[in-house]
Amino acid sequence: MKQLANFMSDNAAAPCPELLAAMAAAAPAQTAGYDSDDWSSRLDLLFAGLFGRPCAVLPVATGTAANALALACLVPPWGAVACHTEAHIQVDECGAPEFFTGGAKLLLCPGDHGKLTPPGINAALASHRGDVHQVQMAALSITQATECGTVYRPNEVAALAAHARAQGWRLHMDGARFANAVAYLGGDAAALVADVDALSFGCIKNGGLSAEAIVLFDTSLADQLRWRRKRAGQMPSKGRFNAAQIIAMVEDGVWLRNAAAANAGAQVLAAAAADRLLYPVEANEVFVQLAPGEADRLRAQGFLFYDWGAAGSNEARLVVSWDTPAAAVERLAAALAAG
Amino acid sequence: MKQLANFMSDNAAAPCPELLAAMAAAAPAQTAGYDSDDWSSRLDLLFAGLFGRPCAVLPVATGTAANALALACLVPPWGAVACHTEAHIQVDECGAPEFFTGGAKLLLCPGDHGKLTPPGINAALASHRGDVHQVQMAALSITQATECGTVYRPNEVAALAAHARAQGWRLHMDGARFANAVAYLGGDAAALVADVDALSFGCIKNGGLSAEAIVLFDTSLADQLRWRRKRAGQMPSKGRFNAAQIIAMVEDGVWLRNAAAANAGAQVLAAAAADRLLYPVEANEVFVQLAPGEADRLRAQGFLFYDWGAAGSNEARLVVSWDTPAAAVERLAAALAAG
Amino acid sequence: MKQLANFMSDNAAAPCPELLAAMAAAAPAQTAGYDSDDWSSRLDLLFAGLFGRPCAVLPVATGTAANALALACLVPPWGAVACHTEAHIQVDECGAPEFFTGGAKLLLCPGDHGKLTPPGINAALASHRGDVHQVQMAALSITQATECGTVYRPNEVAALAAHARAQGWRLHMDGARFANAVAYLGGDAAALVADVDALSFGCIKNGGLSAEAIVLFDTSLADQLRWRRKRAGQMPSKGRFNAAQIIAMVEDGVWLRNAAAANAGAQVLAAAAADRLLYPVEANEVFVQLAPGEADRLRAQGFLFYDWGAAGSNEARLVVSWDTPAAAVERLAAALAAG
Amino acid sequence: MKQLANFMSDNAAAPCPELLAAMAAAAPAQTAGYDSDDWSSRLDLLFAGLFGRPCAVLPVATGTAANALALACLVPPWGAVACHTEAHIQVDECGAPEFFTGGAKLLLCPGDHGKLTPPGINAALASHRGDVHQVQMAALSITQATECGTVYRPNEVAALAAHARAQGWRLHMDGARFANAVAYLGGDAAALVADVDALSFGCIKNGGLSAEAIVLFDTSLADQLRWRRKRAGQMPSKGRFNAAQIIAMVEDGVWLRNAAAANAGAQVLAAAAADRLLYPVEANEVFVQLAPGEADRLRAQGFLFYDWGAAGSNEARLVVSWDTPAAAVERLAAALAAG
Repeated sequence: MKQLANFMSDNAAAPCPELLAAMAAAAPAQTAGYDSDDWSSRLDLLFAGLFGRPCAVLPVATGTAANALALACLVPPWGAVACHTEAHIQVDECGAPEFFTGGAKLLLCPGDHGKLTPPGINAALASHRGDVHQVQMAALSITQATECGTVYRPNEVAALAAHARAQGWRLHMDGARFANAVAYLGGDAAALVADVDALSFGCIKNGGLSAEAIVLFDTSLADQLRWRRKRAGQMPSKGRFNAAQIIAMVEDGVWLRNAAAANAGAQVLAAAAADRLLYPVEANEVFVQLAPGEADRLRAQGFLFYDWGAAGSNEARLVVSWDTPAAAVERLAAALAAG
Repeated sequence: MKQLANFMSDNAAAPCPELLAAMAAAAPAQTAGYDSDDWSSRLDLLFAGLFGRPCAVLPVATGTAANALALACLVPPWGAVACHTEAHIQVDECGAPEFFTGGAKLLLCPGDHGKLTPPGINAALASHRGDVHQVQMAALSITQATECGTVYRPNEVAALAAHARAQGWRLHMDGARFANAVAYLGGDAAALVADVDALSFGCIKNGGLSAEAIVLFDTSLADQLRWRRKRAGQMPSKGRFNAAQIIAMVEDGVWLRNAAAANAGAQVLAAAAADRLLYPVEANEVFVQLAPGEADRLRAQGFLFYDWGAAGSNEARLVVSWDTPAAAVERLAAALAAG
Repeated sequence: MKQLANFMSDNAAAPCPELLAAMAAAAPAQTAGYDSDDWSSRLDLLFAGLFGRPCAVLPVATGTAANALALACLVPPWGAVACHTEAHIQVDECGAPEFFTGGAKLLLCPGDHGKLTPPGINAALASHRGDVHQVQMAALSITQATECGTVYRPNEVAALAAHARAQGWRLHMDGARFANAVAYLGGDAAALVADVDALSFGCIKNGGLSAEAIVLFDTSLADQLRWRRKRAGQMPSKGRFNAAQIIAMVEDGVWLRNAAAANAGAQVLAAAAADRLLYPVEANEVFVQLAPGEADRLRAQGFLFYDWGAAGSNEARLVVSWDTPAAAVERLAAALAAG
Repeated sequence: MKQLANFMSDNAAAPCPELLAAMAAAAPAQTAGYDSDDWSSRLDLLFAGLFGRPCAVLPVATGTAANALALACLVPPWGAVACHTEAHIQVDECGAPEFFTGGAKLLLCPGDHGKLTPPGINAALASHRGDVHQVQMAALSITQATECGTVYRPNEVAALAAHARAQGWRLHMDGARFANAVAYLGGDAAALVADVDALSFGCIKNGGLSAEAIVLFDTSLADQLRWRRKRAGQMPSKGRFNAAQIIAMVEDGVWLRNAAAANAGAQVLAAAAADRLLYPVEANEVFVQLAPGEADRLRAQGFLFYDWGAAGSNEARLVVSWDTPAAAVERLAAALAAG
């Protein structure tokens, strides 16, 4: 019987042991619920230390909730958010940004390798007049690492931030795979968010279980976010379990170790398919141009993965998780190298 | 040093061991996320067995989300929901029903012991004309057990359901403490929901951790709920942990055992304060008229609880959880008996 | 054949000749539409003169739109508006405030003669905790003249405004019959809005045709209102007709003459039913306790009016318009006097 | 002094005399307001006669309101509307569709001459998976005449309608210049809406004053629209003036005469610039490629018009209204011919 090896997504991986231990430690009955427990109250300082500046941190149940709530704090109902054509907020959240903002619009910008650039944004928005008959540009949302598995360099983020600031826009970062980006760049998280107003700090894809964190660097928005989160049904009474997960993830560098492990696996695959990568491999996702029939052959060997791109394009997405067995990665690398 | 005994709320209690075990069993990496895992796919049948009729079951992160999403499926933006003046959806959800429904209104009905009755509803809505200038009555929402710790009998629910049906309204039940109600009535859950369109099935207050379940008995609403849940950021990729909790809660009767334990503790307190109860004690909440100064004396002995009612009213709410130590209950009962 | 005399409402009265003339004058083709025409651009200064302080004025199509858009500028989606139990925004706008605000709640306060008072508001909101689990009180909305045909005195408005300011709430005035209130009080409009943030300035019930005005005294909200108005479909390209109506109404005192005429008719009726008025008659509405059978007898004589209050209460509402013939008023007065 | 000739837009033109007369006729006081007057109650039958099938017709204040309310009846909050990249609902309504629908998305489809085609829609939506993580395609919205001044032929509409039906989508037509399209095609309005679910029937640009009509051919949506319209502040008490305008427009063919006049003017301009038209001229808008400096020269002669396209593209939009003087058209034609 063939041995299954799962490269579908990192979003159904196991939680890492540090998080399970933290949740067990949070199990005993508490006298205070909601955000008043001993774990939730530690989050702000923990992340302030991580990022080197004050912030307000609130856990939510999903990345979609993190993105949509963050955007709702940054953008009015008549506002617009510029984002990449392939952004998760556009193509994978069933209209959550529109729901949470009260009807703001996403204005789509193409960009190589999943990245936005100031000139690319300018070109995409050239026909947006911004008069009273149109929604008002209010924020930029970028994904780090991108939906193409690439990573914005600090100077690229800084250029986008400067562009946004110059026009009075806020900057949101969808960091569902932020850990992978930081790990790729060598671990300096602060540099990557120096000009960011709100970060969706992902945990679930990186060995987490049931919590992501919204990190507000504009702490004047914290009260608003608390109210929005409550009325969105995202403020659990036993929120200590969410906070405990996030603490366990960040406190001792688990997040960077997990991400580094996943990234390393992706590099093994990238090396094996170096001549047919669709994008540079910088995080834990590998997009490969397969030969006709190759997808079937790989699946016949037990490899699970998603087709990508247009029907018939023979493109594949291969995702490595923090816990993908090295043997599975080596086996897939060999299969790719065999073509 | 005094020994603390916590009667604040059941919402910060420990998760019960059966659920922790179920979550551990769900930990290994899966190939399928979202609702496609082996746990999520079992929920519909499990609850159909429990309630004796088909239903669609979707986990969410909080009771607020369960209530608001359920109501959004039952009521249009121009609709109205009749509920008790003290209903959780009115006083404790920061406008979540209004947010999720797109602006529906709650019409408030007083009622003894936290209960609605057809005549009470009629009286409260007497001046609601229902013409095009007003929101359209579309649903009734009742809480079981009620916010006063009382329990609707099956015939009371049936009378409300008949009243609703006669006027074309849907029936929602906020079952944050549904287990306590069923345990109190002897365990026949099916009878209590025979005419209900949507039930918010509570777990978290009853030994759960991070999941409640929306049970749709009108399964024609299931697709709508899936889309609404996704765009509300309530569809986690590792949803197996939520489903596993709910399965563990229901499968072997854990929910009724936990609820019975909490109810029993409440009865001990009720017996000790029988002559000064504000409402009949039928679930796990005890509302007591204290003497002037008594609250301070109780707190000095280490008992934690909320004041209730208007300032200066000397009313207290005492909540027993599934895991409240019997010794703590006995100690509080003795203190209450001592007056 | 009996002669009909219409006391149903002032909202289907004829437009007054000054407005029809103004619309005719605005008919010729213009080069600029939306708010760029010669009429729309005059509104701010015209009302600044009327009220003695700067304001931003934008016409909308209905009183419901005026109220809901004004409130949306004053209150966040998680906010609450305190208003009278009988307020038009609560009972006659089909949830428009909830729709436009994105789900804010109205918190209802009873009050004699349709009026709110600080102690009455305090009592009604006594149980509103305002913690993160509840909507946040953000504004007070009062109706001038009230839904009971009474008029707030300047010191009453000032007391409410001081109460609101002390707690950080904004103040909205629904002035569907503002002209009647000003006329009753002797014409000093400025004193009545000295502390108001946003006024719905009514024209349609007072001889207008198709426009009401939102008057923002907090002009920092003007841009927001423009965007909200546009996306609400309330910014007509030929907006000059709306602006021209409003100018014609205000410029030469037409609004006060029309209102005075209607008020005078109401006083005639009030005198004839002085011993059975439900509320003091201070504007153009008369609420009368009829005898059993009297409503039928009045209708048999051709008088048209609405029953009021609960079924069987024999209460009637009689509304006098700016153009109600004096003979009709006299005839109804005589009929009422006859009992 | 130069003589101004206005080709800016048809949206600030004079109302036509027939409408002004109808409004004057509706001026006298009525006993019934809202939709109960003698004019409003005639609309359904009048349009049923015009289109040869039952429909429900409700006036609103603007085309934006007509479009957004119609779409809200056709599309759920988690729905999507496919429309042209240049559609008015996308670029000129400040997010009204998103606001009224509760957050639905517009999915943009390019298309020559402002027109959609089934293959073009298929191509644009090729990457839209439509799973639970995405908004659900629910309607197609087309503009007739298009934003490029072209006109869908009956068979083109039928092909789009068949495409929509086959996939369970509804069909909305933005008919801000519907009259121009019908006039161009020879007057058979019924053929153009044979498969349409909801039509925004434009009047204002065609000699109207303050009312557009929503025509629902799916009359099962009529109640919903009434409630939505009321809560949108689009149901005026003196709605008779809106209904009277629409009746006057349609009853004796005024709408087609006005549109034919405007179309004829556009043909004169088209003939004069036949070799440099950007799109076929089929309605009352002419898009012309100007030479460098030509725009300035035209403006120096008193011609008013908007630049079009990208900055520096030397494109111009010339709009002829029902009442644009023939002399002005001839003068502009001569100027264009002179190059």
